[in-house]
Amino acid sequence: MAPDPSPPTPDLLAHIAWSRVAEPGDAVAATLIQRLGAGPAFEWLTSSRAPVPPGLEPHPAWEATAANWRARLTHLNPGRELAAIEALGGTVLTPEDPRWPEGMAGLEAGAPICLWVRGNLEALTRPGVGIVGARASTRYGERVAADLAEGAVRAGLTVVSGGAFGIDAAAHRAALEAGGPTIAFQAGGVDRFYPAAHHDLLTAICGSGGAVVSEAPPGSAPMRQRFLARNRLIAAAARATVVVEAAWRSGALSTARHAANLMRPVGAVPGPVTSMASAGCHRIIREGMAVCVTDAAEMLELTGPLEAGSEPAPAQAGLLDGLDGDCARVLDAFPARAGTTADALVHVAGLAPAAVLRALGSLHLAGRITKVGGAWRRV
Amino acid sequence: MAPDPSPPTPDLLAHIAWSRVAEPGDAVAATLIQRLGAGPAFEWLTSSRAPVPPGLEPHPAWEATAANWRARLTHLNPGRELAAIEALGGTVLTPEDPRWPEGMAGLEAGAPICLWVRGNLEALTRPGVGIVGARASTRYGERVAADLAEGAVRAGLTVVSGGAFGIDAAAHRAALEAGGPTIAFQAGGVDRFYPAAHHDLLTAICGSGGAVVSEAPPGSAPMRQRFLARNRLIAAAARATVVVEAAWRSGALSTARHAANLMRPVGAVPGPVTSMASAGCHRIIREGMAVCVTDAAEMLELTGPLEAGSEPAPAQAGLLDGLDGDCARVLDAFPARAGTTADALVHVAGLAPAAVLRALGSLHLAGRITKVGGAWRRV
Repeated sequence: MAPDPSPPTPDLLAHIAWSRVAEPGDAVAATLIQRLGAGPAFEWLTSSRAPVPPGLEPHPAWEATAANWRARLTHLNPGRELAAIEALGGTVLTPEDPRWPEGMAGLEAGAPICLWVRGNLEALTRPGVGIVGARASTRYGERVAADLAEGAVRAGLTVVSGGAFGIDAAAHRAALEAGGPTIAFQAGGVDRFYPAAHHDLLTAICGSGGAVVSEAPPGSAPMRQRFLARNRLIAAAARATVVVEAAWRSGALSTARHAANLMRPVGAVPGPVTSMASAGCHRIIREGMAVCVTDAAEMLELTGPLEAGSEPAPAQAGLLDGLDGDCARVLDAFPARAGTTADALVHVAGLAPAAVLRALGSLHLAGRITKVGGAWRRV
Repeated sequence: MAPDPSPPTPDLLAHIAWSRVAEPGDAVAATLIQRLGAGPAFEWLTSSRAPVPPGLEPHPAWEATAANWRARLTHLNPGRELAAIEALGGTVLTPEDPRWPEGMAGLEAGAPICLWVRGNLEALTRPGVGIVGARASTRYGERVAADLAEGAVRAGLTVVSGGAFGIDAAAHRAALEAGGPTIAFQAGGVDRFYPAAHHDLLTAICGSGGAVVSEAPPGSAPMRQRFLARNRLIAAAARATVVVEAAWRSGALSTARHAANLMRPVGAVPGPVTSMASAGCHRIIREGMAVCVTDAAEMLELTGPLEAGSEPAPAQAGLLDGLDGDCARVLDAFPARAGTTADALVHVAGLAPAAVLRALGSLHLAGRITKVGGAWRRV
C-alpha cells in the first residue's frame, strides 16, 4: 500500500502520540480524546501541568493517571511512528478516518485511539464474523473452525480472528484457502508478527486482501494485558463472534464476553463433554451467553443475511436492509424522542429479551440508535 | 411381590376394563373417567346406547369415539387381567391408589388410566430423572449416559428410561451397577418384555428395587403409537429429563417435548457437531427447549437438590423444602385466590420466563399449585 501522499495532520500526529502514551484499552484516554479532541488533550498533557484536563471535573485519580501517561512522553516522535508504519506498507487510522471500521463505534469510550493496519484497509470495512478459540485446540475443533471460515467466506464475510495458534490459525488458513479476506488482530505492534511461527501466515493474510491490525503502535510487545484488550477489537470488528473450542477459562471466552457486552450475537460450537477443549463453549451455551452453533448456516443466522460476496452497504441506514424483522419491530418500539431501555423494549416490542438485545446490537451497528447514559435513543 | 389379598373393587375392575378398551394416551377416555368415575363411565359404555355420556355436552365425535371403544368390549374380562398381572408378581395401579406416582398428575387429562407394574412399586414414588436417547447410540453417548445414571443413583434419584437399545440400556445398566433403582416404561404389556433381547436386563431391573411399567395391559403389542404415548410417561415420572444422544428426528426428542410441556426441566448432552447422533441434542439446545448438560452435577441442577439417598418427602407440601428460591418467589407472586398466567408471573416475580416455567413445574409437582382452564391457582 502506497504511503499517503498528503502531509500528516496535527490531529493524526496527536492520535499517534496518544496511541503511544496510553495502553490499549485505556478508556480514560479514549474518553478524554473524545471529549477534548486528540490535539487539545495532548496539549494539556504536555504543555500544562494543570492537574485536571480543561472542562473536566476534578477527581483525585487524574493526577496518577496523567503521571502514567507522562512517563511515556520521553523520546515521543509521532512523525517517526508514522514513517515506520508507512515503511512497512501500512497505515494508521483514527476514528475520524472514513475508513475507520464502523463496528468500533460500539465500543464507545472503549474504542481504540488508533488502528495500525498492514494489508488491505478495505477488509476492515466489510462485514465480518469473529471465529476464535483455544490455542490448545483439537483436530476436531480445527476442522470445525475451517468449515465455519470457509462458509463465512462463501457468504461474503471477512473472517476476523487473533492470529494465534490453534483455532485462530485454522480459521485464517481456511479463509485464505477459500480465497476470502481475513483479519488478524494483534496484541503487539504490527511491525513484528506474533507468534513468530505465524510470520508466513500473517504475511499471506496481508497479501491476500486481508489485514493485520493492532491498536498498539509498532514496537509494542505483545503483553498479557494487551491480549485481553485486543479481544474486544475482534468482537467489535465482527457482526457476530463464534467460539469454536475453549477451555473452562480461556481467552476466547473474553472475546465472547466482549461481543455479548456489545450486544453482538455470540455462538459457541459444542463438542464432546469429555473434551476439556469444549468445556468453555458448553459453559457459555449453558450460561445463555452463546447460541449453540453446529455449522456455517447456523453461524450465518447470527451474522444476519448478506448478499453473497456483498460489499458493505453505501449508507449506514442501508445496513438495516435485509436484516431480520426483529430490528424493524424493535426500532418501531422506540419512543420518538425519549430514551428507552432494553427491558422497556421487551415489553413494547413483545419480543424475547435475547431477540431485543440482538436487534439493539444490529441497530446500533447500523447507526440507527445510540446509547446516551444508560438509555437507548433513536438517531 | 405378593398378590393383593383383598378382593378387587368394582372401581379397580372398571379401570382395568377402560385400560383395555382405550388406547394408551386416549385423553377423551381419561377425561371421561375423571369426570364420571371409571365405573359410571364404563356403565354408560356397556349398558346404555345413549350417544353421549351422562352430563356431558353432545358432540358429533362421541359416536365414532364410543364405537372404537365398544369394538374392544368382546372377551373383556377385567378379573382375568388382574389375575394375569398378579400371576406375574405385578400390580395394577389406578390414579386413586396412594402408590400412584405423583408426577403423573402433571399430565392432567393425558394421565394414564392404569399403570401395570412389575418389580418394586416404591421405585415409582421416589424422585426420578429421565435419561433417554437414541437406540442408534455411539460409545461416547453410552459412556455419558452411564456417567449420568451413576450420578443420579448417588444423588438418590431413580433413573427413568424406556428400556430400549442404546442410551436407555446404558442408563439402566449403569443404574443397576451403581446399586440404585431404575424404572423402564414399556410401550407394550409388561407380560412380555420389549425388546426381547433385553429380557434379562428388564428382569434384573424388577429384581433390583426398580420396576418395569406400562399403561397398556398385559398382552398389548408394542405398537408405534404406544411408543409415542409411552414417552409422556417417562417425562411425567421424572423431575427432569436429559436427552443424551438423539438424531435430528428421534423419539427421544418427543420425550423431551413432553417434559417441556409438563414444564419439567429438560437437558441435552452436546457432542461433536460431526456426529449425527448428537444433532437432535444440539437442536433442542438451540431451540431453547433444553439446557446444555455436560455432567451429572449439571443434570442434578435440573432435578433440584435432594438429600443423598433421600426418600420422598412425607407430605406433599414438604416437597418444596430445599427447592430453589425461584419457587418461593413465584409462589409469592401468585394472587391469593384468583388465577394467574405464566406471563403475569414473569412480570410480578421479576424472573425470566424460563425460570418461571421451571418454578411452576416444581410447584405443580409439589402440589402447591394447580391449573384450572388456562390459569394457574394456588392450592
